[in-house]
Amino acid sequence: MAVRIVPVIMSGGSGTRLWPLSRAAHPKQLHPLVTELSMVQETARRVAATSKDFKFEAPIIVLNESQYIRARGQLDELGCVPACYVVEPVGRNTAPVAAVAAELVRRELGDDVLVLLLPADHHIRDIEGFHQAIAHGAALAAQGQLVTFGIEPAGPETGYGYIRRGEPVSAGFHVSAFTEKPDVETAKTFLASGEYYWNAGIFLFGAGALLAELELYCSEVARCSLAAVSGAEMTGTKLTLDLAAFEACPSISFDYAVMERTSRAVVVPADIGWSDVGSWDALWSISDKDEHGNASRGNVSIHASENSFVISDGAKVAIHGVKDLIVVATGDAVLVIHRDDAQGVKKIVDALKEAGHDDLL
Amino acid sequence: MAVRIVPVIMSGGSGTRLWPLSRAAHPKQLHPLVTELSMVQETARRVAATSKDFKFEAPIIVLNESQYIRARGQLDELGCVPACYVVEPVGRNTAPVAAVAAELVRRELGDDVLVLLLPADHHIRDIEGFHQAIAHGAALAAQGQLVTFGIEPAGPETGYGYIRRGEPVSAGFHVSAFTEKPDVETAKTFLASGEYYWNAGIFLFGAGALLAELELYCSEVARCSLAAVSGAEMTGTKLTLDLAAFEACPSISFDYAVMERTSRAVVVPADIGWSDVGSWDALWSISDKDEHGNASRGNVSIHASENSFVISDGAKVAIHGVKDLIVVATGDAVLVIHRDDAQGVKKIVDALKEAGHDDLL
Repeated sequence: MAVRIVPVIMSGGSGTRLWPLSRAAHPKQLHPLVTELSMVQETARRVAATSKDFKFEAPIIVLNESQYIRARGQLDELGCVPACYVVEPVGRNTAPVAAVAAELVRRELGDDVLVLLLPADHHIRDIEGFHQAIAHGAALAAQGQLVTFGIEPAGPETGYGYIRRGEPVSAGFHVSAFTEKPDVETAKTFLASGEYYWNAGIFLFGAGALLAELELYCSEVARCSLAAVSGAEMTGTKLTLDLAAFEACPSISFDYAVMERTSRAVVVPADIGWSDVGSWDALWSISDKDEHGNASRGNVSIHASENSFVISDGAKVAIHGVKDLIVVATGDAVLVIHRDDAQGVKKIVDALKEAGHDDLL
Repeated sequence: MAVRIVPVIMSGGSGTRLWPLSRAAHPKQLHPLVTELSMVQETARRVAATSKDFKFEAPIIVLNESQYIRARGQLDELGCVPACYVVEPVGRNTAPVAAVAAELVRRELGDDVLVLLLPADHHIRDIEGFHQAIAHGAALAAQGQLVTFGIEPAGPETGYGYIRRGEPVSAGFHVSAFTEKPDVETAKTFLASGEYYWNAGIFLFGAGALLAELELYCSEVARCSLAAVSGAEMTGTKLTLDLAAFEACPSISFDYAVMERTSRAVVVPADIGWSDVGSWDALWSISDKDEHGNASRGNVSIHASENSFVISDGAKVAIHGVKDLIVVATGDAVLVIHRDDAQGVKKIVDALKEAGHDDLL
């Protein structure tokens, strides 16, 4: 019998790296950034396939209250019916999300069913490769391992976590070490060694196995998360976690709480055309372009320009004679930065926060 | 007794060189581009002064129907009460405007009263110098000369008309030649000679003198313009020229119809801080700037950028890490061009016309 996997789509982020399009109540994952579907729709569709090696169950969607209506509308539109929408009353990073998900799966389907924890705002070009990697990971997770997926590094990026591979194990490797956001020199040595992967932030594990490891390494998160589930309020398919219990939970990443400590960590290489779409430049990189390297979305006119990315959700945006620019226009805000100016959006967003412009964030 | 001058403010233009701010029904001269007053307000204020040498009468405002309400509102706001608003039922360039104005002045005030013909969309920094030049010009115009004002060229611009000075006459010179839009090599020789001025498009002449010269050199314009006045419809201070007569009038510039042909042309040098604000770059040039050379209008945040010009009439516009850019955001359009990209706006506007986007023009 094919192994059963419950996809848990983490859709609670409200990042500002794609400001002004991405906003607290209408974040990146709810926008059609790469295709005509929103990123959460693409993610849901990606985990609706069947395979001879595994069976995806109805997904669990984790998000916050301000995103619920919009996200649900988008998934309804797709004909996707999640097992439930888990509403986080406050954000507590990914370890509590993993714990809540594992507990829900354990209660409903049993200890041995697998949980696939994945962000709603990543792009994966090669769906077949993705499913292949899941199949490889599922075989390991079914044996009690906690699986992370490793991306072949495309350059010495300093914004990612790196995973060093150890001894081979079936279609993967034991994890030898995790390194969060190395400096560029360190990242270069990692690449040169050929032993490192980027950590894609996608995890696969048995519900019972995760809860056991969490109890070992971070029992406070386990305790609070389980209490938040026990005290949760269910309305239809909307499960709102208990505020007091969840608020008491440490805010900590799943990598840090479990993966970096457990002896059961394995990495499965995943050559799947992955991008976390973590900046406008990253989105430009994976977008279709004209013969001059320009990409665009919406009501846009590009003249005599090169390697630029122009996005509008309404107004006509017209450019002429520029290169390497990002231009993003929404109804109430316009961003213009150099394409390699990774800090630009952050600086602008920080200044808006400072000035009390929460209406724009 | 001080000579009487009727300012005739030509406010009928609907240029697109400052697109997307300047639109057919809300053109450049009705925007507060340089100061907090609109350009037509500034122009009206500039010709409301008194002097021992001349007396400005109530002005005549020439415009088209779609601009009337807005222009009148702006002048009312300023407390400016024009002698009349002349509505052109169709545009016929500046020679017919001069003829209509001269005829109106002749009828109401007599042949000897002077007409100061001036565009509504130029910026003049030095008002005192402007009035001094007018005084010099008035002395010549009172003797029957047709006066144009000459700007010391700041560079070999190819977009202006050039005036070559001849023999001196009181505070000016007889005009030796006019040259429209020379190529850059010719413009350079003009500058090197020291004998040339830019034609500012501001003219001063006696009403009777102009009509006599027009009769000599371009009688068709004189005939049609006078008929358009005779057949005009007056409602309060709004005088709508007769459509059939004015439509029959040749469309021709005052320079070409009269100034380049008459023997009475004189040029008065005018060192008055003049700009025709003929491009976004020209507007940037005369704007106040921060220590990095950036200028802005409206709801704008500028970070780590140089020599750029950012304008918004609503949305927050934020830039980071760019230089030499023009960014202009209106509710329905956003323009991004290089500051020295003089052709950019024209190319974009032409493409919009081609695509039938009259709503944006």
